[in-house]
Amino acid sequence: MSFLIILPKRDPKIWIEALKSSDKTLEVETYPNIKDPEAVEFILSWKHPHGIFKKFPNLKVIASVGAGIDHIISDPDIPAHIKITRMVDTQLTQDMSNFVLSLVLDRIRDISFYHCHHKWEPKMYQRPEELQVGIMGMGVLGIAVSQRLINNGFRVKGWSKTPKKIPGLDSFHDQEQLDKFLKKTDILICLLPLTSETENILNKDLFKKLPKNAYLINVARGRHLVEKDLTEALRSGQLSGASLDVFREEPLPPDHDFWKEPKIRITPHIASITNPSTVAPKIIENYRNMKNGKPLKNVVSRETGY
Amino acid sequence: MSFLIILPKRDPKIWIEALKSSDKTLEVETYPNIKDPEAVEFILSWKHPHGIFKKFPNLKVIASVGAGIDHIISDPDIPAHIKITRMVDTQLTQDMSNFVLSLVLDRIRDISFYHCHHKWEPKMYQRPEELQVGIMGMGVLGIAVSQRLINNGFRVKGWSKTPKKIPGLDSFHDQEQLDKFLKKTDILICLLPLTSETENILNKDLFKKLPKNAYLINVARGRHLVEKDLTEALRSGQLSGASLDVFREEPLPPDHDFWKEPKIRITPHIASITNPSTVAPKIIENYRNMKNGKPLKNVVSRETGY
Repeated sequence: MSFLIILPKRDPKIWIEALKSSDKTLEVETYPNIKDPEAVEFILSWKHPHGIFKKFPNLKVIASVGAGIDHIISDPDIPAHIKITRMVDTQLTQDMSNFVLSLVLDRIRDISFYHCHHKWEPKMYQRPEELQVGIMGMGVLGIAVSQRLINNGFRVKGWSKTPKKIPGLDSFHDQEQLDKFLKKTDILICLLPLTSETENILNKDLFKKLPKNAYLINVARGRHLVEKDLTEALRSGQLSGASLDVFREEPLPPDHDFWKEPKIRITPHIASITNPSTVAPKIIENYRNMKNGKPLKNVVSRETGY
Repeated sequence: MSFLIILPKRDPKIWIEALKSSDKTLEVETYPNIKDPEAVEFILSWKHPHGIFKKFPNLKVIASVGAGIDHIISDPDIPAHIKITRMVDTQLTQDMSNFVLSLVLDRIRDISFYHCHHKWEPKMYQRPEELQVGIMGMGVLGIAVSQRLINNGFRVKGWSKTPKKIPGLDSFHDQEQLDKFLKKTDILICLLPLTSETENILNKDLFKKLPKNAYLINVARGRHLVEKDLTEALRSGQLSGASLDVFREEPLPPDHDFWKEPKIRITPHIASITNPSTVAPKIIENYRNMKNGKPLKNVVSRETGY
């Protein structure tokens, strides 16, 4: 029986060490160095080369290194019986909350504006209670971010497939309530999973439903956003700016227009980075659950995509 | 009886309107247009021309527009019987908490670094629980800031003249505990009042007592800081950076060295700006207390300076 790591463009060493310190007897292999493909039952994966999973006839579980599993299920060649799990980790969730709070505060207090500006030109600031923040996607991350913002004085609305009962949160759901949700949203935060339903959801039609001068924060996936629609919305003044941490192509190419657009603020996909040492015990736990025929934690529905 | 406003370089209109909407019968005059200096009993002041208060023989109260009163008591020509009050306002306090939290998050998540940098160069971030924040000055603002940081997962210490009992706060006091307080402080926040004891307190001797690579945030007064000592500490690597909102000369002159120092992040004194409409009722309340011979609120000790 073998545990396989597929992490192209990443150093697997830190992962091997973290996993082995959770389970000293673990046999770990790193793609593409595999002795016996038939022995592979569990794969820890991030952005694998599409089509490779069918090479492992006894594969039972693919575990995503991150909170999203779009990089796995975008591969059409995954046999239906294979279970896919996502990462749910307190630190990952807290890191996302810290990051989104940082971006929202930066927006209302103009910290990076002043830091980049190098001129003494004070302007009035906004206060948390003066604006409405809308979060699209109320999963583990969306809920945690909403709580953090509420605790810091923001008025927060959430939009999700099903209604949520969260103290202090104004909950909207489904397509029919989307327009109402967007109507008074001054800062829109995208924390949706990437699925066929949510791909390209951040487009010109949606931007038009926001109040003029609304601000966009995308910390989900680059493919949620129609890039040219954002550029147009910024130029027309429909949107006042955007903080983007995720992009269709990462790293964002040096010649991409977004680098030249002053109203777009770019961070290099650093909202929350999985820490191998804190999540390794969770991965090992699920690995053991698989071996012992017990139910797995954080299994994702391939139908909904989250 | 007259209520006088002294706000050089500021538009007094917004103040007159706010005060009059709290008290329609109020007679407001604006310096230097005064009918009868003998009628002036109450002055609302911000950075007045030194020496002018003695022109008003019946002056009883000088109210500061802001939280600090250093701009008032730095004038040696204020008769001893005149009471001086400072501004204590929930919104002012919340604004300061939001601002300091913004700066601390910006520091640990490198938001403005990325926003100004325009290159895809991700680096690891710090988490709130991984570092110690030390606040110098545990008055109304220091306490509020400490609570806000604690609520967002930071480990916070406070240093003040007298010990404070605040849930979750590690309290240090007096000169004798200063070294111990500084020893493990990764981010030092200055929120001290400006007095003869605290002027120039942010100097090379203090910086040496901090751990190497510590970070300074000054949101108090420019005169707390010995400017050349900061530049030296940044160049030697003793400090890793500084966020400054206050300066010896404001606006910070365009040719000042601080603008050229990449490790110094400048904001134009915008931590918390008094909102005339929210504080006018408090000023009117104290004005009435004075007229009715009742005790005033937020009177400052001229001896301690706060």
